Amino acid sequence: MSQLRNVAVLVGSLRKDSFNRKAALALAALAPASLKLEIVEIGGLPHYNQDLDSEPPAPWVEFRGRVNAAAGVLFVTPEYNRSVPGVLKNALDVGSRPYGRSVWSGKPGAVMSVSPGAIGGFGANHHLRQSLVFLNVPTMPQPEAYIGGAAELFDASGAIRNDATRAFFQKFIDAYAAWLEKNV
Amino acid sequence: MSQLRNVAVLVGSLRKDSFNRKAALALAALAPASLKLEIVEIGGLPHYNQDLDSEPPAPWVEFRGRVNAAAGVLFVTPEYNRSVPGVLKNALDVGSRPYGRSVWSGKPGAVMSVSPGAIGGFGANHHLRQSLVFLNVPTMPQPEAYIGGAAELFDASGAIRNDATRAFFQKFIDAYAAWLEKNV
Repeated sequence: MSQLRNVAVLVGSLRKDSFNRKAALALAALAPASLKLEIVEIGGLPHYNQDLDSEPPAPWVEFRGRVNAAAGVLFVTPEYNRSVPGVLKNALDVGSRPYGRSVWSGKPGAVMSVSPGAIGGFGANHHLRQSLVFLNVPTMPQPEAYIGGAAELFDASGAIRNDATRAFFQKFIDAYAAWLEKNV
Repeated sequence: MSQLRNVAVLVGSLRKDSFNRKAALALAALAPASLKLEIVEIGGLPHYNQDLDSEPPAPWVEFRGRVNAAAGVLFVTPEYNRSVPGVLKNALDVGSRPYGRSVWSGKPGAVMSVSPGAIGGFGANHHLRQSLVFLNVPTMPQPEAYIGGAAELFDASGAIRNDATRAFFQKFIDAYAAWLEKNV
């Protein structure tokens, strides 16, 4: 059996009953024993400002430490205005600085976008991937995950309602486990 | 002479000596008499969270009011990690909500990206334009403005150092004034 790998999960929506949070928790529950998925909260990160690099706010330091300690990074995000939510992009920016000390570089990643709409967050998914190229995050290409119709996917307890979706989530997280082992 | 138009200027960098802020102030100084450019600050906007829509934080309310009161919107932004800075994307997100009450819709816009690098923030410029399509901001196509080598552009007082750059900034803001009149 492979080594236990900690994975930092970033959720792009702050809403308490967020579909994205439910999707992230569903992935955590389905993950193989070799992966330990933990949500790293991003809502308390002050906006990135280079002037603060010399005395970084405590939430920046804690966030960078948690991502640094993880073997991989998994993004589960809604689409806001055809792109990545500002709060998630800010987390990317905070983690990428100061110059030369990015926490992202080399950490195998994956992206799932989740949306109540039909397009499944395609715009957010690919804008995020463009940043991940720059950040040197080897990002799993397949299976792509554009999860649409999210309002119907989960029951009141957050469990996935239908077998086909559950099977896809399983396939996604199993593929990510293999991607992580290959690229870590 | 045309009517005086207030333009809300959003600057994507919070750094005090930001090249983008200098560029925004230079545009304000060069603007024709028909335009009044004012920077609307975005650094104090809490991250967008749909749970707060029913009782929006005071900075959201003030920001939305200021953009609502403007005839047009001008974005001057650096590129962070090949995309829009989180802080600027968050301002877009805050202004776009609650659903059906976006402050952006129909306001003629323009984008200038400013970077110390050679590519001049092309990635940020076009990710931003993708959001502006969704937000129904008629965005000026030409002249495109990818301002590279920004560290050499301004003197200590923030004035533009060379005639060619000054002429380009003049052309840009004059074109925007015309675009605004046509689309307002």
